[in-house]
Amino acid sequence: MKVIYSNKHQAHQGGMELHRGELVPCYEMPERAQYMLDAVTAAGFEILPPRHFADDVLERVHAADYVHFLRTAYSQWQADGKSGFMLPSAFPARGQRQDKIPSGIHAKLGYYSYDASTPMVEGTWQAVEAGAHSALTAAALVAEGERSAYALCRPPGHHAGHATFGGYCFLNNAALAAQYLRDQGKEKVVVLDVDYHHGNGTQDIFWQRDDVLTISIHGDPATEYPFFLGYADEQGEGAGLGYCHNFPLPAGTDWPTYQQVLLKALQLIKDFSPDAMVVSLGVDTFEDDPISAFKLKAEHYPLLGQHIASLDLPTVFIQEGGYAVAEVGLNVASVLQGFEQAAQL
Amino acid sequence: MKVIYSNKHQAHQGGMELHRGELVPCYEMPERAQYMLDAVTAAGFEILPPRHFADDVLERVHAADYVHFLRTAYSQWQADGKSGFMLPSAFPARGQRQDKIPSGIHAKLGYYSYDASTPMVEGTWQAVEAGAHSALTAAALVAEGERSAYALCRPPGHHAGHATFGGYCFLNNAALAAQYLRDQGKEKVVVLDVDYHHGNGTQDIFWQRDDVLTISIHGDPATEYPFFLGYADEQGEGAGLGYCHNFPLPAGTDWPTYQQVLLKALQLIKDFSPDAMVVSLGVDTFEDDPISAFKLKAEHYPLLGQHIASLDLPTVFIQEGGYAVAEVGLNVASVLQGFEQAAQL
Ligand SMILES: [Zn+2]
Ligand SMILES: [Zn+2]
Repeated sequence: MKVIYSNKHQAHQGGMELHRGELVPCYEMPERAQYMLDAVTAAGFEILPPRHFADDVLERVHAADYVHFLRTAYSQWQADGKSGFMLPSAFPARGQRQDKIPSGIHAKLGYYSYDASTPMVEGTWQAVEAGAHSALTAAALVAEGERSAYALCRPPGHHAGHATFGGYCFLNNAALAAQYLRDQGKEKVVVLDVDYHHGNGTQDIFWQRDDVLTISIHGDPATEYPFFLGYADEQGEGAGLGYCHNFPLPAGTDWPTYQQVLLKALQLIKDFSPDAMVVSLGVDTFEDDPISAFKLKAEHYPLLGQHIASLDLPTVFIQEGGYAVAEVGLNVASVLQGFEQAAQL
Repeated sequence: MKVIYSNKHQAHQGGMELHRGELVPCYEMPERAQYMLDAVTAAGFEILPPRHFADDVLERVHAADYVHFLRTAYSQWQADGKSGFMLPSAFPARGQRQDKIPSGIHAKLGYYSYDASTPMVEGTWQAVEAGAHSALTAAALVAEGERSAYALCRPPGHHAGHATFGGYCFLNNAALAAQYLRDQGKEKVVVLDVDYHHGNGTQDIFWQRDDVLTISIHGDPATEYPFFLGYADEQGEGAGLGYCHNFPLPAGTDWPTYQQVLLKALQLIKDFSPDAMVVSLGVDTFEDDPISAFKLKAEHYPLLGQHIASLDLPTVFIQEGGYAVAEVGLNVASVLQGFEQAAQL
């Protein structure tokens, strides 16, 4: 399969994040993409640059005011005399209004976010836009007939909602890919999220829709990020009721347990009978991931790819999380290779 | 008037806060209370320790689960192997559930808060409880017949809601004092908040009630903390509709403008005809305050005290913010002296 990659992601670096009480260099760093690029290059995949897409394609899943905010936030920060990374620190949480968009940049940052872990720097928009275009390009290739494609997106996207950033995510690359497939005539699309963390942004975007099924397998939000979404009782709303499935799993989950749940998810997808599939591919399920608590080993990632291939669907892979540096590339390549080998059978 | 003070506040120190993108030593530091204590001592006020109150008095304005959380949070943090200060970093903001109380301490911190600026340390509860007891003691003195009393509380309280901490605040000292006055037979009580920041916690607590009028004069939340409450269109709800008034003012507001608005607030209080008054006394309206933008000078604080005295109400002063170190004590003492001199006329 073809790999879509842009080195513009490198402009998004130098930020710090508040992680469980400490201000530390952001775990979501450029080296991650380099490890992945090296691994997929070594595995022989063809690397292509993203095509360009207009803003109205982004606005198919994100609010226009939010896209405008992302594009202009850092300039507003600079106009306030600030430099370096910017992090929100106050949020419209319990008991507070969510209907006011404040004018000050610091307040506005909090309005559009829900954590103090997602820094923006001067080059963030450049990287974010290139990542979104990579996802859309992968979706376009599949819409045009490719069996599969992989967008090596950085920063990731699955925590970004209709009008919210968080969890290192700004534009929801997987949701953009799914919507693009819909707009190109795929009548039903599934997004399967296998990142360690709940795909709360993707769920948010498709919450009221029955044409995009969202399924996420992830660490239990009672103790794992994003904490306030990802519980099993979330099933969608309105027309979307029954088209959202969450599988929260406890810390220490290993492959046999994970595989059982994955098979349930695959059955739900078969029952839905979609025309195309998007995989939010995080490999922070790996046993050595620094911020996660599942116990998958390197040998399980090819199996994950094979299981996904067994659905026999046009498939767009979108890179999400995975923070164990060197292994992050190998595990991603393993999933893609496992998929390709099974797909050719 | 009598001053209620406990040196237990000193146990709440050493925390860092995320302030407009930077992790800095918390502006709300023990030295603040020392400056105030020195100034009121020099001014000849009598200093008394707080009496003790049972938890059910705290639960008259705060949720029982929230009080339990505050009391036990640091132990849970330690049980997780952590030390030092703790700050939440992820919050149930826009698009996220507010009906789930996660079990993990880090998640729970975010559930009960709305900013990354309010660190807790090992001694926080000890200081918070002593501050609340100081406020209750001042209210008790006034309920027992004193013309006025001043609780030198630290940390402050007016940002703490029914079940939320934030803005350096954990228990709402002013709300506790107001409720105590109600419970001792004062039928109508007003809370006037003259801190630079909106008293969002106090507003939250009395939002649906017509027996406690809340009035706050503060920096415009469109650019000033807490950003998501404090707008002029907030007027209470249900029985409380019309019993909440906010006066957001622009950066640079000086005494002549401030005084005009204060006179409007005083007229509203006269119209309400309360039986007692609580003043949330922040002096971060001072021109040299490091985190605020009003332009009040030292000479205006006695005038503020005189205006408050003109209402001729039993009055409990509760210390809120004020961060300009040395001047913070002098300005507080000036308000109290201005009040006493006018009250004796
Ligand atoms: Zn993840
Ligand atoms: Zn203040």
